[in-house]
Amino acid sequence: MKRALLLVAHGSRRAASNEEVNALTELLANSLDKDYTFIKSAFLELADPSIPKGITRLVEMGAEEIDVLPYFLSAGRHVSEDIPTIITESALQYSNVIINLKEYIGGSSKMVDYICALLGKDV
Amino acid sequence: MKRALLLVAHGSRRAASNEEVNALTELLANSLDKDYTFIKSAFLELADPSIPKGITRLVEMGAEEIDVLPYFLSAGRHVSEDIPTIITESALQYSNVIINLKEYIGGSSKMVDYICALLGKDV
Repeated sequence: MKRALLLVAHGSRRAASNEEVNALTELLANSLDKDYTFIKSAFLELADPSIPKGITRLVEMGAEEIDVLPYFLSAGRHVSEDIPTIITESALQYSNVIINLKEYIGGSSKMVDYICALLGKDV
Repeated sequence: MKRALLLVAHGSRRAASNEEVNALTELLANSLDKDYTFIKSAFLELADPSIPKGITRLVEMGAEEIDVLPYFLSAGRHVSEDIPTIITESALQYSNVIINLKEYIGGSSKMVDYICALLGKDV
């Protein structure tokens, strides 16, 4: 089973912000190469590739299962409505591919530990 | 020395998004009570308290040193310009208080490990 991870960010008019996401994606690709055959990024708006385009590319590369991870801090409209709608449409388009929408990164209880680590505190 | 942490988020028209930030702040307050006397949140826009108001409150509570942590994922205009400008103004206003602007949470190399942990992978 060829698994893929798609990191989905909001997208910015600032190229540097989008490049930050792409750089993070490359670091993830190095760390998670045993878990995922392909690791790519996509953007909800303002940058390329879009989420549907990102999924299409992964399918064309041979991905059979895609984990979509929203790189968002809070469950606003984008996380609660826009991204699920897009993913549902992609899942209908590629019914032979398993597409899992994961929880947005700010929604985890691990965020507390992450921030403590940033501040140099062990908990 | 009474130290304070101010978690600074963007702010949303959705009350639920702002409440997520406040809930995270309460969890941080429990985890970091040995490191900080006060732990509060503030918002760049669209929600209360504003960043200057948040800093004023902490100073009035007796904070002598304030760590300001931008709860942002990328270094867009808000992180690179707006927040530093506000913090510089507050530092001028309260010259007897040490105000440290910390790196935004998406800027850490630890983000890779955090995401791996979310996906259930040890690195």
